[in-house]
Amino acid sequence: MTTGRGAADIELLVCMTCRRAGVEPPADTREGATLFAALAEAAGPDGPRVVPVECLSNCRAGCTVALRGPGRWTYVYGALHEVEHVATVLDGAARYAAAPDGLVPWRERPEHFRRNCVARVPPPTPVLEKPE
Amino acid sequence: MTTGRGAADIELLVCMTCRRAGVEPPADTREGATLFAALAEAAGPDGPRVVPVECLSNCRAGCTVALRGPGRWTYVYGALHEVEHVATVLDGAARYAAAPDGLVPWRERPEHFRRNCVARVPPPTPVLEKPE
Repeated sequence: MTTGRGAADIELLVCMTCRRAGVEPPADTREGATLFAALAEAAGPDGPRVVPVECLSNCRAGCTVALRGPGRWTYVYGALHEVEHVATVLDGAARYAAAPDGLVPWRERPEHFRRNCVARVPPPTPVLEKPE
Repeated sequence: MTTGRGAADIELLVCMTCRRAGVEPPADTREGATLFAALAEAAGPDGPRVVPVECLSNCRAGCTVALRGPGRWTYVYGALHEVEHVATVLDGAARYAAAPDGLVPWRERPEHFRRNCVARVPPPTPVLEKPE
C-alpha cells in the first residue's frame, strides 16, 4: 500500500455534471459521470483517490477534473473525453503525485494537460502568527 | 479586529503575471500587478487577505483572482479590469466571506462573477479513518 506523500495523498476530483461540448443530442448519462466511473475503475489501489464533485464550474469546456493534495498546487483541466482521455488523466495524475509540490515541468505533462489547463491555485499560504 | 470565520479567514489571491486581454502594445506594468496593488490598498483591515500569486494559469482571460478560505469552496474569476473591477472584486469577496461554505447564491453574486467564473474547487474531502 502506498503511504506518505505518494498517490495515496492525491485527490482526483471529477465533475459529475459535465456534458462534453459538441455532443448532440445530449447523452442520457452525462459524460462527466461516465468519466468518473471509468477513472474510479482504472485508478487501482496505487492511484489517486477518485472523488466525484457536483460541479467544477467549467461548464463551457467539459469534461473537467482537478488534481490536488496536501501542500500542493491544485490544477484544473478541461476539454476531456470520457473514454479517450482516461489513460491521459491517470498518467498526468501519476506525474503530479511524483512532484512533491504538484508542479510538474511543462514538457513532462501530458499534451492534453498542457493545452487544457483551466486554472491552478497555490497551496495554502503560511500565516505568520503574531506573538501575544 | 475581525476574528472567527469572517473576512479575516479569506484569501483573495491575485495573479501578478496576468496581462489583460486586448491591451496593445503590452503595458510596462502587468495589469495583474496593478490589480493586486489596487486591491491590497482598497481591502482595508476588515477585508480579505490579498495575496500575490505568480500565475493562476488563466492566461487567456486575465486579469484573474481566486477566493478561498478554510472549509470553503475555492472560486477562480477571470476577465477582470485592473481599475474598473476593484470594487466588484471586493464586493464579491465580502459576499463570499459572509457565506460559511463560500457558496454565494448565484443571483447574489456580482454580475461579473456570474459571467466569468473560470473554475471552482470544493473544500477538502473528509477522509474516513479505518480502525486499526
